[in-house]
Amino acid sequence: MTLPSHVRIVEVGPRDGLQNEKTIIPAATKIALIDRLSRTGLRSIEATSFVSPKWIPQLADAAEVFAGIDRRPGIRYPVLVPNEKGYDRAREVGADEVAVFTAASEAFNQRNINASIDASIERFVPVLERAAADGVQVRGYVSTVLGCPYQGEVPVADVVRVARRLYELGCYEISLGDTIGIGTPAKARAMLHAVAAEVPIEALAVHFHDTRGQALANILACLEEGVAVVDSAVSGTGGCPYANGATGNVASEDVVYMLEGLGITTGIDLDLLIDTGLWLSRQLQRETSSKVARASRPDG
Amino acid sequence: MTLPSHVRIVEVGPRDGLQNEKTIIPAATKIALIDRLSRTGLRSIEATSFVSPKWIPQLADAAEVFAGIDRRPGIRYPVLVPNEKGYDRAREVGADEVAVFTAASEAFNQRNINASIDASIERFVPVLERAAADGVQVRGYVSTVLGCPYQGEVPVADVVRVARRLYELGCYEISLGDTIGIGTPAKARAMLHAVAAEVPIEALAVHFHDTRGQALANILACLEEGVAVVDSAVSGTGGCPYANGATGNVASEDVVYMLEGLGITTGIDLDLLIDTGLWLSRQLQRETSSKVARASRPDG
Repeated sequence: MTLPSHVRIVEVGPRDGLQNEKTIIPAATKIALIDRLSRTGLRSIEATSFVSPKWIPQLADAAEVFAGIDRRPGIRYPVLVPNEKGYDRAREVGADEVAVFTAASEAFNQRNINASIDASIERFVPVLERAAADGVQVRGYVSTVLGCPYQGEVPVADVVRVARRLYELGCYEISLGDTIGIGTPAKARAMLHAVAAEVPIEALAVHFHDTRGQALANILACLEEGVAVVDSAVSGTGGCPYANGATGNVASEDVVYMLEGLGITTGIDLDLLIDTGLWLSRQLQRETSSKVARASRPDG
Repeated sequence: MTLPSHVRIVEVGPRDGLQNEKTIIPAATKIALIDRLSRTGLRSIEATSFVSPKWIPQLADAAEVFAGIDRRPGIRYPVLVPNEKGYDRAREVGADEVAVFTAASEAFNQRNINASIDASIERFVPVLERAAADGVQVRGYVSTVLGCPYQGEVPVADVVRVARRLYELGCYEISLGDTIGIGTPAKARAMLHAVAAEVPIEALAVHFHDTRGQALANILACLEEGVAVVDSAVSGTGGCPYANGATGNVASEDVVYMLEGLGITTGIDLDLLIDTGLWLSRQLQRETSSKVARASRPDG
């Protein structure tokens, strides 16, 4: 196995994780979570999303959260923005990195934003132009890269085309997401391989949901393919509104445990990360989805 | 990735899984479980253990269970035997395959059976001699291959020595077990590689517990190393009395899902296996540990 020597974890719990939790979480809890995460050694923490509160009430407090966190030097705090209005709101509170989001599945885009893939990407163009002018870095998400709840199979060629377009438009990093957690290692690796033929592997990240328990195996396969950026969520928060099964994002603790075991550095203090995840699960009054965290407790 | 084209799953739920469940399970339920598993396409089902009921009350009904199942042609039904007395009991009810069990950790053997590794293996010699004379096949288990709850690190050389000795003594297959679910993929693969230098890879199996969520990634790494036999337990039953965390054996459903996705045949009907696991979880009145099974339910 040839593996990267260092992996950067992009912690998506405060946004992708909490967005899909059923209970409404107070802004103060979100702020405390992000500040705790900032002390673990993480270098990228997705803080919130400036989508319309009409669509995602869970994130209506985006401005309050972002203004309230203690931003530390050397840590990226990207925020999701769906359009120029979101970009404006993010900039008003001082965000200097944003993320844009589309899907590799035509059916998913049609159903979620009533637009084709190409049209959905065109909506980002003004955001990307303004970001470039403002010196704001942009991360791009491509979802449904290994399957779609509406159309089933997603052609790899569509994933490649969307990823390349986002890269050409100026995204410094493209996160490839198995939104419904349906993929298995060889398919994940083949998809990444195809994208890496068109976008430098250094500009790619992988984003797995653990719906069918495959996330760590998929990450391992993608590490073997050379990817060195992995999205995950502390305590395995989240879930997918489009898929059955209670499981959300792969738990950051479990990813870091595997990476450490592989001799790959992350710069993260795993014990602090576990503590943060257990703290969060108490706030959410639900069991942590991190098996490493569960195994760390004296009572199991 | 070079992977085997076919993998044989050794279903250990009825023995390794149920042995470590907290509730006492009626013999009729165990029999029904094994008969259901026999219809899924599985070719190896570990049925029970003829240990002293004094030590493991959960398996005091071994003879009743073994005599009660509907043994199908072409399916192996190994049973664990700790010594000649267990062997006699197993033979009385017609078992034609047995399994013996030791650990690669000196401390684990000392603590559990008050004997050194070598002494523990010598206890099997009469069993293996009689099995050879009777035409009974013997499977060997080596536990704590990636770590021990008492001594911590377990030298790979000890794993190799124990596996080789069991093979020399006539075990047709050696199952290498990460009893406390502490291993990660590169370590699992390196351990397997070292053992495969002394015992043919065709005679090796891997056995992972999912205590820290690493089991599927470890299995993937071992498949890449050439192993083609994998132990797992339907519904992810079990747990380890020596380790924290509620999680037991890796769930057969999740393993088969990954293998199918990798294009590896198992001969197993995954839908039937999922149904069997959900049936079992209802009997045990606990949530299934298989994420694939959870994702298959309409309500998640």
